[in-house]
Amino acid sequence: MIRRYDWQKLAQYCAGLFTAAGVSREHADIIAESLVQADLRGIDSHGVVRADIYLKRLEAGMMNADGQMFARTTGTVTLLDGNNNPGAVVGTRALELALEGARRNGSAVVGVKRSNHFGTCAYYLLKAVQRDTIMIIMSNASQTMPPTGGLRPFIGTNPLAVGVPAGRRLPFILDMATSVVARGKIIVAAQKGESIPPGWAIDKYGNPTTDANAALEGSVLPMAGAKGYGISLFIDLLCGVLTGAGFGRYVNNMYENWDEPQNVGHMFIAFDIGKFMPTELFKERVDRYIEEIKAEPRAPGVSEILIPGELEHRKTLERKSRGIALPASVETELQGWGERFGLDLSSALLEESPYSR
Amino acid sequence: MIRRYDWQKLAQYCAGLFTAAGVSREHADIIAESLVQADLRGIDSHGVVRADIYLKRLEAGMMNADGQMFARTTGTVTLLDGNNNPGAVVGTRALELALEGARRNGSAVVGVKRSNHFGTCAYYLLKAVQRDTIMIIMSNASQTMPPTGGLRPFIGTNPLAVGVPAGRRLPFILDMATSVVARGKIIVAAQKGESIPPGWAIDKYGNPTTDANAALEGSVLPMAGAKGYGISLFIDLLCGVLTGAGFGRYVNNMYENWDEPQNVGHMFIAFDIGKFMPTELFKERVDRYIEEIKAEPRAPGVSEILIPGELEHRKTLERKSRGIALPASVETELQGWGERFGLDLSSALLEESPYSR
Repeated sequence: MIRRYDWQKLAQYCAGLFTAAGVSREHADIIAESLVQADLRGIDSHGVVRADIYLKRLEAGMMNADGQMFARTTGTVTLLDGNNNPGAVVGTRALELALEGARRNGSAVVGVKRSNHFGTCAYYLLKAVQRDTIMIIMSNASQTMPPTGGLRPFIGTNPLAVGVPAGRRLPFILDMATSVVARGKIIVAAQKGESIPPGWAIDKYGNPTTDANAALEGSVLPMAGAKGYGISLFIDLLCGVLTGAGFGRYVNNMYENWDEPQNVGHMFIAFDIGKFMPTELFKERVDRYIEEIKAEPRAPGVSEILIPGELEHRKTLERKSRGIALPASVETELQGWGERFGLDLSSALLEESPYSR
Repeated sequence: MIRRYDWQKLAQYCAGLFTAAGVSREHADIIAESLVQADLRGIDSHGVVRADIYLKRLEAGMMNADGQMFARTTGTVTLLDGNNNPGAVVGTRALELALEGARRNGSAVVGVKRSNHFGTCAYYLLKAVQRDTIMIIMSNASQTMPPTGGLRPFIGTNPLAVGVPAGRRLPFILDMATSVVARGKIIVAAQKGESIPPGWAIDKYGNPTTDANAALEGSVLPMAGAKGYGISLFIDLLCGVLTGAGFGRYVNNMYENWDEPQNVGHMFIAFDIGKFMPTELFKERVDRYIEEIKAEPRAPGVSEILIPGELEHRKTLERKSRGIALPASVETELQGWGERFGLDLSSALLEESPYSR
């Protein structure tokens, strides 16, 4: 029987682990919320599965539990030095600065250096759209993809994300890695002994491969060939080179490098809708657009045309009600930290109501 | 024997056509420069091949020859009403406003409505990087691609473009449509009787196809599946919905709609590098990054790892020296307009020097 966790209790449990590791309650809540929200939305790769590595890096002194952050604003540009705090804490500060700047000036740019893995971009976008703000978020990441024509990883699967508020419709929430596919899908294919489609990966000699195991020893490719390489590269130029953060090989892998902080860089660009047109008019236009797309004739076998963010919203409703199932390995990790810190993971289990299914 | 044209004389010739059609000399020079620069860079689809349709729309009153443009700035946000002027003229004004705004405030956002097809984004990016400014440019376009799961065109191949200055290296110039491939490549395959790779297009019934003719009756697909659809969609939300321009079906096709202006929308986002770090330091970091990528080990059969914009720069040098060859159909069109306006296309032919090859 699969155990299912209550999202709020699971967040509380994770926050408890982070406070035990020295993080302030306020910041622990942010990190935990960011992770559990990813699980709710079905982005399990960015969910509480990451709590273990965050805790290990806190414990190893590779991440600051509660360092002072420094922000300097010149005109509409703010540079935030994350001082190696947990990424979700740094990202949340960047979000606040971007929202304030956009409210004041119409648009704002916040460049961030000395940050860490900051979870999903959607976590920040969902807060931005609630404030009637359009937000573009980018981040660099440690090396996983080769440049087009290259043999080994050089750029990260640097995500590009955009949030746009709607009126009666769900907001538009696009949060995508610039790789053709998540590495996790190749791992699953390898486990099942299945081949992978051409175009997903190269082997360690740089040859295209459909062998999942060879792909895991090689590199996942950028989406859309040279176009994805170009997008990933400009994200690194903005998030890494321009902010003063690491870039290319100087963004450290959080699982492999135990000598230095990650030095991840982010970029938050915010637009206050009211400076362009009345917010209500904008939302009507977005609603109309979404409704027109969804009413389009569909290709054979397609039941619905989706807007980015729609599936994740449905998954959230489902998992809030039915609970979050975790892989056994993640349960073991979380339970292990709990035992050290005097917390019990089973306290986060969903209490099944007879009416809950 | 192939006739080759001198790029400067060809630009002069085209500018002469536009002035004869009522455009001011200053604006005619901008439009002609934009077209010829695309030919120089090897982007023939956006070169002087477009002069004919621009002239036809001017003559039909579907585009203003020299309308007054209106700009309103609130904080860092400028809204530019292009008043249906030629796109390159509107885009150039947007570029100037974005550059001024970034110089003044650190960053600037210029949203544009009531514009037209504005050529390549690279035309503006190349001017921006010369001014030590990082620029993101997006535009919507008339309907050519279905949403993921859709049957017929709904979104445009809305381009995403980013320019980043370098020091001793060439600037980073990414200018890409959000389609998996240019429609022109499918036309070429159909002409040669060749099939196209899976994933490029769907037929008119919405089924995946490798038949080039069926693809031409159907739709070219967004790059990278749902990711490209998401990117194209957010570009339309920003360029169309937010600026007050057309969006989706309300961006008119310049070849098909002779009742209304196109109402294309653009978005220019500019970052003044000096507000982030000393410009020279930034350029050194970009140079180092580019040199590190280019020094990466290469996959079998690959002679060089390229940075976006590098091939187009080489093509420019080659075509500046060897001249620009035009398809016969384009020569006929240009010559036809010349005859009406008292201009002679042969005046733009390259004078071959005995040392020029």
